[in-house]
Amino acid sequence: MLTTPTIHVARDRFHLAWDPAIPAIETVPSGGVVEFDLLDASGGQLTASSTVADIATLDFARVDQVNGPIAVEDAEPGDTLQVELLEFEHADWGWTASIPGFGLLAEDFPDPAYHVTQLPKGPRAEFLPGIRVPLAPFCGEIGVAPATGPLSTIPPDAHGGNMDTRHLTAGATLFLPVFHAAARLSMGDGHATQGDGEVCGTAIETPMRALVRLTVRKDLHLTAPEFLTAAGPAADRPVGRRYVTDGIAPDLLTAGRDATRRMIDWLGREHGLEPVIAYLLCSVAVDLRISEIVDMPNFVVSAHCPLAIFD
Amino acid sequence: MLTTPTIHVARDRFHLAWDPAIPAIETVPSGGVVEFDLLDASGGQLTASSTVADIATLDFARVDQVNGPIAVEDAEPGDTLQVELLEFEHADWGWTASIPGFGLLAEDFPDPAYHVTQLPKGPRAEFLPGIRVPLAPFCGEIGVAPATGPLSTIPPDAHGGNMDTRHLTAGATLFLPVFHAAARLSMGDGHATQGDGEVCGTAIETPMRALVRLTVRKDLHLTAPEFLTAAGPAADRPVGRRYVTDGIAPDLLTAGRDATRRMIDWLGREHGLEPVIAYLLCSVAVDLRISEIVDMPNFVVSAHCPLAIFD
Repeated sequence: MLTTPTIHVARDRFHLAWDPAIPAIETVPSGGVVEFDLLDASGGQLTASSTVADIATLDFARVDQVNGPIAVEDAEPGDTLQVELLEFEHADWGWTASIPGFGLLAEDFPDPAYHVTQLPKGPRAEFLPGIRVPLAPFCGEIGVAPATGPLSTIPPDAHGGNMDTRHLTAGATLFLPVFHAAARLSMGDGHATQGDGEVCGTAIETPMRALVRLTVRKDLHLTAPEFLTAAGPAADRPVGRRYVTDGIAPDLLTAGRDATRRMIDWLGREHGLEPVIAYLLCSVAVDLRISEIVDMPNFVVSAHCPLAIFD
Repeated sequence: MLTTPTIHVARDRFHLAWDPAIPAIETVPSGGVVEFDLLDASGGQLTASSTVADIATLDFARVDQVNGPIAVEDAEPGDTLQVELLEFEHADWGWTASIPGFGLLAEDFPDPAYHVTQLPKGPRAEFLPGIRVPLAPFCGEIGVAPATGPLSTIPPDAHGGNMDTRHLTAGATLFLPVFHAAARLSMGDGHATQGDGEVCGTAIETPMRALVRLTVRKDLHLTAPEFLTAAGPAADRPVGRRYVTDGIAPDLLTAGRDATRRMIDWLGREHGLEPVIAYLLCSVAVDLRISEIVDMPNFVVSAHCPLAIFD
């Protein structure tokens, strides 16, 4: 660890709603560094030896917990909380699941699926034989006490929360609007890697150690999360070559679904993947981009699969 | 030119609808190379010396023309037309406009705007003093005769058309489903560069010389456009560092609008841009990505601005 934390938050110090009524468990000064020890998004219900049968018995009242809240001295409503993402350290395993009723293609995949990936220290993990995905750990959930609550921890909103944004890796800086005194930051939902969209609803879910620096910005007034991506290796890596499938439709959700379905078809015909494992791979490694959002009445969502995962 | 074209298509050989009733103007064998000389998307109505007043008198019946159609021997319905994008050469100028009633934020920007960019031979163009955008020329419109018609050339669909997809640069290969004998390819709408989304509805619009190789693929059966992005410099360039604004909403269109509005705010407060010129810059250089499309009821669209444009 390069930075000494001001405080440490143990893995059992979590809560299960975004709610301004939840009191802070610790307080740091502006500029304080917090180390979080985080269970995976199942709250420890799923392990490296779990099977698909365990998806059926998952207690959804205990998922997507977030650890905290951490009060930051001097933060007032209308300020911005600057969250420097200093370090993320994933566990040596992670899970990806298709959970019935959840995910972009829930109608296409009514049955549960569960897939475990071993996570090495290096830059890539073997998701399937011959398919290695780049590791870029981050936390799906980072947020402050919302304006009103309690709110579920599933949908993100102006306070942040479950943004599931893969670009929030170590070295990035997140800015969150402050709604209540002391801001009260919580985080969780460790992801070893993910594609833009997280189409099956889960990434490579993993326990995570996270280190963040929390600074009050009196000069900045935001209405929703904004962030600066990381410099260094994350910025220097090449764009890379991609195979891309399009969805073209009058609404972006349908376009996103169609683009993903066509990517699943391509992963089947070119790489021999069964549809459900292709769906999980899309969630972990394929990016949804809005190619055009103006040529009424049809929009284009494109699913980009980096070819480097097959090298 | 590295490849000798089989045929040349002059700039006045265009049509103004996607329509299977339009006869081919030329025929090439499978593997034939076609060179297109293309007017800009205004059909030559706008020039480097036009002003915002010319937006008001634009004849919309003459915009988004496409040149062709080119018949490809042996192409049959159910085949795929492989379009290798060999070369794109933009003119030495281009225009970007906000056109009343058109664009993602048409309600926010009711007045017309018109901006001319000088386009050098090099890799970047000065869009504004101190803001240089990377040039990555492509054609917004590439399509085959649609299943039924006539259709407007504005919305894209399964036949391709106005996909406005910035990743279709030289070196990429586009695959289009074939609906009619000889496929009948047309293209137009030269863009010197664009962001994912093309939020104001125009890119850097420019006359273009395009060179493509057309090959019939009997082994491939698609339902919509798919493509392989370019190898070489386009793939090797770094991802780069970005400032990102989020839109979080129950529908992706609203999320895209909110993310773009917040990016316009950031370009104002950090870089001193007036809202309308920031809107044009977003269309030219900012990318809309779907960060998450599963955490019901709220989705996240993120607008990514590459910081390299300010170097």
